[in-house]
Amino acid sequence: MKRIAHIENDMSDKFGIPRQSGLVCDVISTIVFEPKYRNADAVKGLEDFSHIWIIWEFDTDTGKTSEEWSPMVRPPRLGGNTRVGVFATRSPNRPNPLGLSCVKITEITSSERGPLIRVAGADLKNGTSILDIKPYLPYTDSHPEASGGFADDHLNDTLNVIWSKDISPSLPDDIYKAASELLSQDPRPSYQNDPGRIYGMKYAGYDIRFKVDDKTLTVTEVEPA
Amino acid sequence: MKRIAHIENDMSDKFGIPRQSGLVCDVISTIVFEPKYRNADAVKGLEDFSHIWIIWEFDTDTGKTSEEWSPMVRPPRLGGNTRVGVFATRSPNRPNPLGLSCVKITEITSSERGPLIRVAGADLKNGTSILDIKPYLPYTDSHPEASGGFADDHLNDTLNVIWSKDISPSLPDDIYKAASELLSQDPRPSYQNDPGRIYGMKYAGYDIRFKVDDKTLTVTEVEPA
Repeated sequence: MKRIAHIENDMSDKFGIPRQSGLVCDVISTIVFEPKYRNADAVKGLEDFSHIWIIWEFDTDTGKTSEEWSPMVRPPRLGGNTRVGVFATRSPNRPNPLGLSCVKITEITSSERGPLIRVAGADLKNGTSILDIKPYLPYTDSHPEASGGFADDHLNDTLNVIWSKDISPSLPDDIYKAASELLSQDPRPSYQNDPGRIYGMKYAGYDIRFKVDDKTLTVTEVEPA
Repeated sequence: MKRIAHIENDMSDKFGIPRQSGLVCDVISTIVFEPKYRNADAVKGLEDFSHIWIIWEFDTDTGKTSEEWSPMVRPPRLGGNTRVGVFATRSPNRPNPLGLSCVKITEITSSERGPLIRVAGADLKNGTSILDIKPYLPYTDSHPEASGGFADDHLNDTLNVIWSKDISPSLPDDIYKAASELLSQDPRPSYQNDPGRIYGMKYAGYDIRFKVDDKTLTVTEVEPA
């Protein structure tokens, strides 16, 4: 498998990345092709599609060798305590480190680095290797009637995000909006309940500190990372 | 990348395989895990989902080495004459031989060969290597409002299928139904217009001969393959 492209965005830390694509649309990412695949012809026609699939490679810094695999995983959506078969989840801990994300095209431009595809809704860390890009075909890919298993029950588990008064004005507006949306997804590793604990999320060069009490997340401090 | 499973069905010939998943639902396929991945735990929870994604490996018997790639391809839906960027198509001739298909789960059973997932709507040839199986999550995967580019314009390009009187009764009913649905998708390599030409499609151990005049496909002969 060849790295044909990679993603560039403001999410340089694993912590805080949305758990699926399409959940956080204020984060804009750019798909940059590797030198060998920088060819405007290769994306010709893509401008007629609104969405694309990205097949990408999970960071495999899990400490496991590629020969090991776990039949069951603990999805964060289930609180991190319930085990489910790996093929019933989108967990990164799977036999082949393949990720699948649907993103919305916002712009396709040309540049010195070849064609650039700007997309909204990616759940990929900055620098992630991309193996394939395919158009989203609603007649075969869209199944609104599909039943979504355990994931359905936790769709509305978002947090209310409150910024301490003196913080938000100091951030650029787009970063403030994107960070708020990321935080509302509850970036904690699992549903912990420790209102006193301070967490940190890096985004767009900032270190954002916050705490969570029940359904309310309060940003307490923001510093350059 | 490891082959974790493969598909078993009645489509043993490349010719006649549907061009996308979900188009031909009368063809039932079985996903069989490779020995190392035969573990009932690994599919636990999948019974709550109606659809899954299959990420699979294209047959790369194209005569090209893996180092070559073509930025543009000629999709059959466009008659085979118009060139489009490879990343704006689902063509198999792409840098990494990755296929993506959404199929409907009809049954999950256990067997001597481990768990079997029976699915409807696959567009994979019998024996195709499967690299990953993921649940279909409608909240992130379903976008009925997405625009589908050139593919939208050719959605209704199906053929009326007529079987010569003395043929159809000799076929088992499920094979007759599935073959009819496959043929209605127009298995010809591109939109040729040669009403006299006899084509052949192998399915379920039968060699099915047919000709096409405008929008009507007539099955002229069926023999054991």
